[in-house]
Amino acid sequence: MDAERPDQHIQPTHLAVTERTRHRRLRDQGSTRVADLDAILRAGFVCHLGVVVDGTPMVVPTVYGVDFESRTLFVHGSVASRSIVQAPDATVCVSVTHIDGLVLARSVFEHGVNYRSAMVYAVPRLITGGDELLHGLRVVTEHCTPGQWDYARRPNSRELAATSLLALSLEEASVKVAAGPPDDADGPDGELGLWAGVVPLRSRFGAPEADPALPVGIAVPAHVAALGGGSPGN
Amino acid sequence: MDAERPDQHIQPTHLAVTERTRHRRLRDQGSTRVADLDAILRAGFVCHLGVVVDGTPMVVPTVYGVDFESRTLFVHGSVASRSIVQAPDATVCVSVTHIDGLVLARSVFEHGVNYRSAMVYAVPRLITGGDELLHGLRVVTEHCTPGQWDYARRPNSRELAATSLLALSLEEASVKVAAGPPDDADGPDGELGLWAGVVPLRSRFGAPEADPALPVGIAVPAHVAALGGGSPGN
Repeated sequence: MDAERPDQHIQPTHLAVTERTRHRRLRDQGSTRVADLDAILRAGFVCHLGVVVDGTPMVVPTVYGVDFESRTLFVHGSVASRSIVQAPDATVCVSVTHIDGLVLARSVFEHGVNYRSAMVYAVPRLITGGDELLHGLRVVTEHCTPGQWDYARRPNSRELAATSLLALSLEEASVKVAAGPPDDADGPDGELGLWAGVVPLRSRFGAPEADPALPVGIAVPAHVAALGGGSPGN
Repeated sequence: MDAERPDQHIQPTHLAVTERTRHRRLRDQGSTRVADLDAILRAGFVCHLGVVVDGTPMVVPTVYGVDFESRTLFVHGSVASRSIVQAPDATVCVSVTHIDGLVLARSVFEHGVNYRSAMVYAVPRLITGGDELLHGLRVVTEHCTPGQWDYARRPNSRELAATSLLALSLEEASVKVAAGPPDDADGPDGELGLWAGVVPLRSRFGAPEADPALPVGIAVPAHVAALGGGSPGN
């Protein structure tokens, strides 16, 4: 992939704001920068997919991957497929959230959480076969574990027939980032003599653990070893 | 709290199964044990709340707390309140998910994620005042940071008037746990000579970081220092 592809220059740098992505709150800093959305999507591999099934909202955790060139989010999930069959034109919501810490203020009222979150809205396409299914599976696999698509055995026709993905266009999204210390140092609460600050929370991969059934002598491949100690997406 | 409260013996030990909590899939191990649900709820403090607003599902990350005696889940969130005002009798879905690792199999098809997840369904009550609001705020505060309710300044009447919670009964829930190595060691894929196993993912609190505006000489309180290095809920 060339760093200077011509079509890079026609990608919008900011998200259009819609009624449901307009930011209403204060401390949660809303962003419309595409770069902020992409950073949040890169830093995780599990989303929460919201669909309506039989009239009830369902929030299903599932893996995802992003094709940043076509700006397509691919989501795995059988519950999702059920909702699409029921309502092919219905919008779904995919949320990706990273929790960065507890914000402990002087007053309970000012307590909060530092986080980065993206809520993507789209009418998804159900992908059940063809080149796009294979492409989407590659995107999801590589998003979770870069290098794994070329290492593992790829899906055969029987497996592809048992697999479906949702494809969502990354056009409408609400991006929020809350960061930094509590903000009640000023005013009377700052005089209470109470400790205030942030307790950071971090997610890290540990060292790869071989399947106990693995024959002796098969080494951890470099792309898997590289995950150990790092965060998803890094 | 006595370990042997008489009413403990009338709490059900298993969840009733409904059409939407019946488990349909294989590797994701469904559980109906109340103890498994409770362990998942204890191990986190941010949920994803699914509501329908103006006909669209929204998946909103927000903090929660659990009163295990009354089996009530308290959820924070202004979007939630909007959905309740629109549809007071509507069911919502609250999902709590912990990602424990990437499961790297020999074949892409057998790849997966180790996780623990609870999806709670209920018609929530909107709590906007009175003793129950104060109780709910205490539950949420103590769930996130045990000891903090007695340490920080509690909400005054003006702050309480600006706060609302949802209360959900913990009666209907779908609990799933996927754990362990990939299961494609048997069969032809086991002969491919490929590495397979799990890359664990862990969330840990770091050392507390004082608000830069904190006056010199205010020590980190013991209940906050105790979080450092541990996981939420431990």
